[in-house]
Amino acid sequence: MPDPFFTPISGFDLPRFAGVPTFMRLPHVEFDHPRFPEVQIGLIGAPWDGGTTNRPGPRHGPRQLRDMSTMIRAQNGATGARPFEAANCADLGDVAPNPADLMDSLQRMETFYARVRAANVRPLTAGGDHLCTLPILRALAKDRPLGMIHFDSHTDLYHSYFDGTMYTHGTPFRRAVEEGLLDPQRVVMIGIRGTAYDNEDRDFADSVGIRVIPIEEFHTRGVADVMSEARDIAGAGDTYVSYDIDFVDPAFAPGTGTPEVGGPNSYQAIEVVRELQGVTIVGADLVEVSPPFDATGATAYLGASIMFELLCVMTG
Amino acid sequence: MPDPFFTPISGFDLPRFAGVPTFMRLPHVEFDHPRFPEVQIGLIGAPWDGGTTNRPGPRHGPRQLRDMSTMIRAQNGATGARPFEAANCADLGDVAPNPADLMDSLQRMETFYARVRAANVRPLTAGGDHLCTLPILRALAKDRPLGMIHFDSHTDLYHSYFDGTMYTHGTPFRRAVEEGLLDPQRVVMIGIRGTAYDNEDRDFADSVGIRVIPIEEFHTRGVADVMSEARDIAGAGDTYVSYDIDFVDPAFAPGTGTPEVGGPNSYQAIEVVRELQGVTIVGADLVEVSPPFDATGATAYLGASIMFELLCVMTG
Amino acid sequence: MPDPFFTPISGFDLPRFAGVPTFMRLPHVEFDHPRFPEVQIGLIGAPWDGGTTNRPGPRHGPRQLRDMSTMIRAQNGATGARPFEAANCADLGDVAPNPADLMDSLQRMETFYARVRAANVRPLTAGGDHLCTLPILRALAKDRPLGMIHFDSHTDLYHSYFDGTMYTHGTPFRRAVEEGLLDPQRVVMIGIRGTAYDNEDRDFADSVGIRVIPIEEFHTRGVADVMSEARDIAGAGDTYVSYDIDFVDPAFAPGTGTPEVGGPNSYQAIEVVRELQGVTIVGADLVEVSPPFDATGATAYLGASIMFELLCVMTG
Amino acid sequence: MPDPFFTPISGFDLPRFAGVPTFMRLPHVEFDHPRFPEVQIGLIGAPWDGGTTNRPGPRHGPRQLRDMSTMIRAQNGATGARPFEAANCADLGDVAPNPADLMDSLQRMETFYARVRAANVRPLTAGGDHLCTLPILRALAKDRPLGMIHFDSHTDLYHSYFDGTMYTHGTPFRRAVEEGLLDPQRVVMIGIRGTAYDNEDRDFADSVGIRVIPIEEFHTRGVADVMSEARDIAGAGDTYVSYDIDFVDPAFAPGTGTPEVGGPNSYQAIEVVRELQGVTIVGADLVEVSPPFDATGATAYLGASIMFELLCVMTG
Amino acid sequence: MPDPFFTPISGFDLPRFAGVPTFMRLPHVEFDHPRFPEVQIGLIGAPWDGGTTNRPGPRHGPRQLRDMSTMIRAQNGATGARPFEAANCADLGDVAPNPADLMDSLQRMETFYARVRAANVRPLTAGGDHLCTLPILRALAKDRPLGMIHFDSHTDLYHSYFDGTMYTHGTPFRRAVEEGLLDPQRVVMIGIRGTAYDNEDRDFADSVGIRVIPIEEFHTRGVADVMSEARDIAGAGDTYVSYDIDFVDPAFAPGTGTPEVGGPNSYQAIEVVRELQGVTIVGADLVEVSPPFDATGATAYLGASIMFELLCVMTG
Amino acid sequence: MPDPFFTPISGFDLPRFAGVPTFMRLPHVEFDHPRFPEVQIGLIGAPWDGGTTNRPGPRHGPRQLRDMSTMIRAQNGATGARPFEAANCADLGDVAPNPADLMDSLQRMETFYARVRAANVRPLTAGGDHLCTLPILRALAKDRPLGMIHFDSHTDLYHSYFDGTMYTHGTPFRRAVEEGLLDPQRVVMIGIRGTAYDNEDRDFADSVGIRVIPIEEFHTRGVADVMSEARDIAGAGDTYVSYDIDFVDPAFAPGTGTPEVGGPNSYQAIEVVRELQGVTIVGADLVEVSPPFDATGATAYLGASIMFELLCVMTG
Repeated sequence: MPDPFFTPISGFDLPRFAGVPTFMRLPHVEFDHPRFPEVQIGLIGAPWDGGTTNRPGPRHGPRQLRDMSTMIRAQNGATGARPFEAANCADLGDVAPNPADLMDSLQRMETFYARVRAANVRPLTAGGDHLCTLPILRALAKDRPLGMIHFDSHTDLYHSYFDGTMYTHGTPFRRAVEEGLLDPQRVVMIGIRGTAYDNEDRDFADSVGIRVIPIEEFHTRGVADVMSEARDIAGAGDTYVSYDIDFVDPAFAPGTGTPEVGGPNSYQAIEVVRELQGVTIVGADLVEVSPPFDATGATAYLGASIMFELLCVMTG
Repeated sequence: MPDPFFTPISGFDLPRFAGVPTFMRLPHVEFDHPRFPEVQIGLIGAPWDGGTTNRPGPRHGPRQLRDMSTMIRAQNGATGARPFEAANCADLGDVAPNPADLMDSLQRMETFYARVRAANVRPLTAGGDHLCTLPILRALAKDRPLGMIHFDSHTDLYHSYFDGTMYTHGTPFRRAVEEGLLDPQRVVMIGIRGTAYDNEDRDFADSVGIRVIPIEEFHTRGVADVMSEARDIAGAGDTYVSYDIDFVDPAFAPGTGTPEVGGPNSYQAIEVVRELQGVTIVGADLVEVSPPFDATGATAYLGASIMFELLCVMTG
Repeated sequence: MPDPFFTPISGFDLPRFAGVPTFMRLPHVEFDHPRFPEVQIGLIGAPWDGGTTNRPGPRHGPRQLRDMSTMIRAQNGATGARPFEAANCADLGDVAPNPADLMDSLQRMETFYARVRAANVRPLTAGGDHLCTLPILRALAKDRPLGMIHFDSHTDLYHSYFDGTMYTHGTPFRRAVEEGLLDPQRVVMIGIRGTAYDNEDRDFADSVGIRVIPIEEFHTRGVADVMSEARDIAGAGDTYVSYDIDFVDPAFAPGTGTPEVGGPNSYQAIEVVRELQGVTIVGADLVEVSPPFDATGATAYLGASIMFELLCVMTG
Repeated sequence: MPDPFFTPISGFDLPRFAGVPTFMRLPHVEFDHPRFPEVQIGLIGAPWDGGTTNRPGPRHGPRQLRDMSTMIRAQNGATGARPFEAANCADLGDVAPNPADLMDSLQRMETFYARVRAANVRPLTAGGDHLCTLPILRALAKDRPLGMIHFDSHTDLYHSYFDGTMYTHGTPFRRAVEEGLLDPQRVVMIGIRGTAYDNEDRDFADSVGIRVIPIEEFHTRGVADVMSEARDIAGAGDTYVSYDIDFVDPAFAPGTGTPEVGGPNSYQAIEVVRELQGVTIVGADLVEVSPPFDATGATAYLGASIMFELLCVMTG
Repeated sequence: MPDPFFTPISGFDLPRFAGVPTFMRLPHVEFDHPRFPEVQIGLIGAPWDGGTTNRPGPRHGPRQLRDMSTMIRAQNGATGARPFEAANCADLGDVAPNPADLMDSLQRMETFYARVRAANVRPLTAGGDHLCTLPILRALAKDRPLGMIHFDSHTDLYHSYFDGTMYTHGTPFRRAVEEGLLDPQRVVMIGIRGTAYDNEDRDFADSVGIRVIPIEEFHTRGVADVMSEARDIAGAGDTYVSYDIDFVDPAFAPGTGTPEVGGPNSYQAIEVVRELQGVTIVGADLVEVSPPFDATGATAYLGASIMFELLCVMTG
Repeated sequence: MPDPFFTPISGFDLPRFAGVPTFMRLPHVEFDHPRFPEVQIGLIGAPWDGGTTNRPGPRHGPRQLRDMSTMIRAQNGATGARPFEAANCADLGDVAPNPADLMDSLQRMETFYARVRAANVRPLTAGGDHLCTLPILRALAKDRPLGMIHFDSHTDLYHSYFDGTMYTHGTPFRRAVEEGLLDPQRVVMIGIRGTAYDNEDRDFADSVGIRVIPIEEFHTRGVADVMSEARDIAGAGDTYVSYDIDFVDPAFAPGTGTPEVGGPNSYQAIEVVRELQGVTIVGADLVEVSPPFDATGATAYLGASIMFELLCVMTG
């Protein structure tokens, strides 16, 4: 029988728009909480966008994702999964960044996630911009490189911006490969599209063996075929899943800083996650939700729905 | 030759954004109007959302649907149908609900629709939340159960909410089956998806023989195949069509209280109605349009377009 | 030295947009929390708008007020007050209403506040529509009638709506007087304006001795003079403060269901609260913030600022 | 006893957000309606903005003003006036403009208002841009020049735009003076401000004797003093009142095409109308409400409130 | 090596949200600029919507399209094309229309484009409403009729509106055929849908040999098949491409005056342009983007993306 | 006679919504432009918000301020000033910041403004967050400390944030005093209000002799009296004017990251600038306009109006 402590409040007891909004109405359990040692999956906010080179806002993502996530119910309507019964899930709160100091923020995040990992809690993070994934990987991949399944419209593999700036939301995976946090042969990037500066990122991917599946190939082959290849690439080893909301077409996810038209619809956005069943997921994130560009909350609601699907495959 | 009285004002005579907005620019004909006895199809607003358990607003639906509906022209571009010439259509105004008394509102609505039915007017209703459909069915199905084709992301078949509350927008069809207003064997629910509390609603559907077509099946089989089955289920008997705007994906219909991602696009939203040709429709509704969550009016415009398609099949 | 447990998280430790949003970043302390007995002032959400006869939405008020309230810092810039050090304040969470049952909701709220009062906690409530104040008064004024200082553009003194509906957000203070919860001689209503149905509410006020200060008088006399009279009317006895956000001009507080133009500006909105210093406040509320009509959050931010000022005078 | 036909539907019978929205819920009485001969004051929409040189949108004004005006109740809260009992008021519908032909539109409007005047109906018009006032004056002032009290941030007295274009919303009163429709000695313009092209308009005003009261003078002298002078200027003769919503500060009336900062607040916006008591008003308008720039409807609501105040002084 | 003068500023040198916004960050080169004679493709704004019969706003299109276009980078991610290196492109500024005089505006636009053509510059225009295309064709097709590939939900082939108004955004191509500017046998219209007044436009198309591909056929046959036919119809001769943003479904392009539901998604919106490779394009436009109905800029961003794809095929 | 080159395009020649938007339609003159040596006042964008500790967005300020500034005409309606004739004004474009590197951005800005100063151009800057003022002061005050008149709701005098972060938008003037860029005895801060962390900033002000005028004093004394004192404090020496848009009440300027309720209205916002006549202004800025929080552009329009008034006193 599920532990009532780790059971989200039902909409039949407290209306879904009511109450202090934690992720999916889970208990708020910070490191010093007595039940923290029992947590198996930690939902964490990374309210930071200091790596953003274009339109800012993902620092507000965790707040709005929490808000919209209270509309999520207990059971996956399609698969029947009940993730909150399959694992002890909790809202660990937000990592505290330093909005005015990039390097300090990277350090604060790495320290936080190291503590999460030390407690054997698998993190499901709500960003934040995509640079947040770098300190997470530093904490999770300290001892061996991870595979990664990456949904995005950009590779985030650039070397640097603005005359040598090495840390932006366009460079995290270049750094992660350089630092040995990712095994490029076990990395696949899906949905890449939009105008490009040049071929530098794609050339790098080719040179290290990262598989890039552009959106044209995605639309031609379909979800099932692409995801089958993705599972093969990730293999049986420990794998991280990084989901940039700009993977999805901006009609479905307008609230993001660097949208690219021509992406998947919301059904495909969810299907790709369901196809992760069987992957050994050691952590996952949903990043780049930017509430200031998402007046209606639609993007955050889609983001919360994706987080729920991620939770289902992490506990499946 | 069409009766000028029942002919909507053309956009060539008065620009489509101008004039007092009635549904589709039809004449406003209340019960005591001398031409009321000639009305064959009545467009009616049900400005009530007292059954809403989540985000409110459908009480404003009729107003905004009227507003956007004045952009509708005389002829169906795809089928060539000219519904306003095929039947005498009129805007019957709004049923007057009691925003602060649920049971009184149900009674007021039933009384109104009983009068509509007594006049042999087929109603096409603009909701209002989905609980509005219950008093409509009470009026229309007084003497025999109806079949129903139901587009929605939710079954609305729950037994009760909040410790025994029997009347909410999540329960109307449970009540309708219990009251003998619907023949469950002739009911089909299309597009069901989203997270669920549990299986209670689906178990009930199975137990009484309601056919539920979840969105995954819809996307796999396609509109034509699904709708062919739907027509078979409804059969030749009197049938009600209930269309919850949250059937459609929230990118196309953001203005609703309980959206679920992963739904049909706007082309499919209209195709399914066109596939109703031949069904014996005794009444129809378009519910759950919530203007406070629809800043641009896009949802109401789609809703008005769906109402026009419903009118085409009701007069086809 | 202030108790760290009851001290809001500083924006210097966690940025103000980050973290699980409780009211003013106070600890979340529900009835069963071990520190509950130490709470002196409880900030409570009443997410219910079932009494709303016009545009709905205040059920979402507590959520958005919590969100914006995290921008509030520790000290009143004008008066120097540091309310979180002057009393143990906590976020008690939301009372659970029943969105589809008015009478049940009134009962649930009364029960909740009875428990609050039994614990000697003074409540500062974030509504919710104005009918929420009735069950609060039922709990707080059980043993003796209270005085009331009431900021609003409406008297909320009507007898009934819609042919005899006794409980709406236009009737709470009629009921409260009838039930002996308010001492009408110690009640003052400030800011009344807008079009009216008739004189029924004002006639009732006159008949029982409630002092109504219409907006014209407010603008002519000014804040200091009006509030001096208000303090005299309330006197030394136990007094409730009820603040309907539609007291403020809609340019400053657009997010409300029944705005009336011509009201006070935001500086006056705060000045009137500061002038409450010395009143014996046994409870207070800020109601009718309606997020669906407040896209930018400006109304909620003003509302949170008013709540902070109320807290300052409650602890002053 | 008031004629029920000319009595707006009460919000106690049909909620104020419900029903087909006519101006202030008055009966919709077009020229061929049997009760038209009894109408004394006609509320008319002029959905046209073909004279707009800057941001368009006032063609949508009448629709949104009707929508928001259903929140107006029967009685003026400040003065006690009940205008719908003082005169037979009706919604005459919209004049049909030609959005793609300026001269044709001017002709259509003049013809419409000539018919209104011939029926001894005093018009209260909801614009539309300010050029709409010219054909209204052509119809109302055919036989003698009128006085005019004009609230605006612009004089609208320019000679021409764009190399000789004589008809724009910046020129109507230059034309009206030239055509002898206005008696410049009986014209006062209040609230003028903002950046200017040059002094051409002000020089013209001076040359013909139009009194211009810039906003600095308005703020210094106050409403009562300024309006006393305005009444003196208009005198006892027939007077037209033209109210451009951009008279009001854009914080209170954002939805307009050419806002100018530094204007009156909403209380002053209404006070100036109340000060018209005693003026012989033969017609009035409220123009330049532009819904595409008024997402929340706040401007239209203020506009409807001003129209109600105009109605009160027209029937006072 | 590319000429630095004609090279857009890179986002690595100046962030993409910064700087004076020209189209795609190209140099601003008006007729009198010393480098004008070197320009090969001119991006031009046509800020005019005087032909709009419904909701206005496209006059603001060029401004917002420029704004969003600064997010476009140098290279087509799908095809690898680098159009700014393939031809000298520049922002020629806006043609100056007369907002209050339709015929004068048509003349001003024709004169401007005649000058563009005389300089052998191929124009890529950002509208403006669809009537803008008529003066462009008058300038470009003076000496021989052009073929045209036209993406739209409307044919814009009506004879007249409002009792004989010949020039509206619903009539440009009727006029263009009558004036011999288009060779109807080489014209194809793709995506036609929505409600219709009648069959007048389609009958005219049939009578002169214009091929109309309604949306149902488009969805059934798919992009590749439809566009293959389109290329055959246009043939090898000089061809104009006119792209009305309302071709795209309103979920992807809400910011337009006369949306029609059921259209292509954003991927198809771009695919159809890529399929123009090989067509002899003498000019192109993207019209009917209406910023007042596009609060988030999503429509303008899609429009800018389409303009970039047009540029790629114009230089391919 | 004014030089046509430095004369903004008139709205009578090109409608005010048209054309490539430079500040106030001035010529775009970068450092390498042949007319640069003639520029006397340079309008500059500082699109950077890396110092923002709360809600981001001012990096988008210059773009939106340029957009709205094209509605500004040639002449000050109140004072008759024609600033574009009084000095050669030009849009110098944007300084290029590095969004992902705070210290690099400060350096880039200082370098840019040093070049501006070296050319004897007085800068009028559109921010950007308030930290942008620090590098501007470093360039302008290299050789002697400046006086400063500072409009704001915050002192921006804090020592550090987040455990020692010295450079945020809450610290620029602490740094400027420490670095000897400001003469604290000649500095006045007007409008200070809102909740505070503590008294650290005010204590520092007192200790160095900065005069702080809180909003209560401002409202009590009025604009003329306060500004007379401000002019006295600044004296005859070189003075910088720094205007944070959050000085103004959020109803008038919602688009900013850290609003504080209870501020001046838009008329006072402009009056205070007019009262600067006679001050020796060596540079000025308008900062903290945050377009993502300013959906309607109202804040940017007010900001552009304030910039125009600043220009008038800088050239007066």
